[in-house]
Amino acid sequence: MVEISPSLLSANFANLQKDLDELKKSKIKYIHLDIMDGKFVPNISFGFPIIKNIRKDNDFIFDTHLMIDEPIRYIDEFKKSGSDIITVHYEACKDIDETIKKIKESGLKVGLSFKPKTDINKIIPYLEKIDLCLVMSVEPGFGGQSFMEDSLEKIKTIRKYIDENNLSCLVEVDGGIKDYNLKKVIDAGADLVVSGSDIFSNKENSICGQIEKYKKIINE
Amino acid sequence: MVEISPSLLSANFANLQKDLDELKKSKIKYIHLDIMDGKFVPNISFGFPIIKNIRKDNDFIFDTHLMIDEPIRYIDEFKKSGSDIITVHYEACKDIDETIKKIKESGLKVGLSFKPKTDINKIIPYLEKIDLCLVMSVEPGFGGQSFMEDSLEKIKTIRKYIDENNLSCLVEVDGGIKDYNLKKVIDAGADLVVSGSDIFSNKENSICGQIEKYKKIINE
Repeated sequence: MVEISPSLLSANFANLQKDLDELKKSKIKYIHLDIMDGKFVPNISFGFPIIKNIRKDNDFIFDTHLMIDEPIRYIDEFKKSGSDIITVHYEACKDIDETIKKIKESGLKVGLSFKPKTDINKIIPYLEKIDLCLVMSVEPGFGGQSFMEDSLEKIKTIRKYIDENNLSCLVEVDGGIKDYNLKKVIDAGADLVVSGSDIFSNKENSICGQIEKYKKIINE
Repeated sequence: MVEISPSLLSANFANLQKDLDELKKSKIKYIHLDIMDGKFVPNISFGFPIIKNIRKDNDFIFDTHLMIDEPIRYIDEFKKSGSDIITVHYEACKDIDETIKKIKESGLKVGLSFKPKTDINKIIPYLEKIDLCLVMSVEPGFGGQSFMEDSLEKIKTIRKYIDENNLSCLVEVDGGIKDYNLKKVIDAGADLVVSGSDIFSNKENSICGQIEKYKKIINE
């Protein structure tokens, strides 16, 4: 069953709990937390204080996407703040194996992501070592970008490798996902789809309404 | 008249507007925004999405304290997000004069801050070029630390230089300020005092109640 991981990057930070309550009403299981440091990506989003403050009243799986340099420095702090999954970028780590090991040892699920320009063959060997592979379907750094069509082939390649090798790794896709292209992403093999602006700032639907629309597409 | 600049770092990010409404009720003029990138200081706090989201419904002076490497990269983006004052760190800028110039050219007020270990004589020559000098009375990076007593001498030195040279630069103090040491900070010459945990997570008083207490001390 495909799950939605709404990205808080597009939520209303003046009243986050209100948006989180909508997600609860919609029986959402995951929330996607985009952490950006202004170094690895040209944007500064949010970090520990926000995660800590929303952790106590919200039972979602905190799906934390670290777009920061050398994330190994902050694994303990993200665990303490309430992350459940920590996804790091292939391009951001000097020692990717050590970083994966550190996340596993902390007892959290480990994800690996890569930028659109990174050769997918560099990622494949890690699929057996990780819990989640996050395919970026836009250049990381900002919400509201258009879905890159060539990411569909990458999703298929990763899906195929996982299935052929009986791996338990989930395939997550992030960037430019909207109601009108969701089906393609699912058909390509996504287990988990990230959506931000299309859910939180949809012109036609409320948050709950838009999630209903996504669920119908998922259940088709 | 000394003003309080409450630091949102200690506010409740699950429902920021509620805390901001308390500040409005208390007729607070400034809010202090601590931006941390995990590089210049070992913490990642918050950035553009939070500032943008709270800007539209809140008329405070957005007093933005950039604890980030090479802040010159992001001046335009902070202006766009809603900052009124941008304070940069002496230690974070390769070219401090260029950074000050860039902030001035963007039409914002410019502040300069420095870490407790930085020689104050390196800061004095800039006082005539800036709108605000932010004296750190803790090591920047976290809320809830204890006030460093030796910062009182620094406040006095800066106050004296400003007064003797008829400069318009404001003196702001940030770190470990509580109701019980506020008077010392004011007596040393502060124009603007930052307080976070003592206002937002005070055990005895509500936000409004604690601000009332501060105002009484200021008016003594």
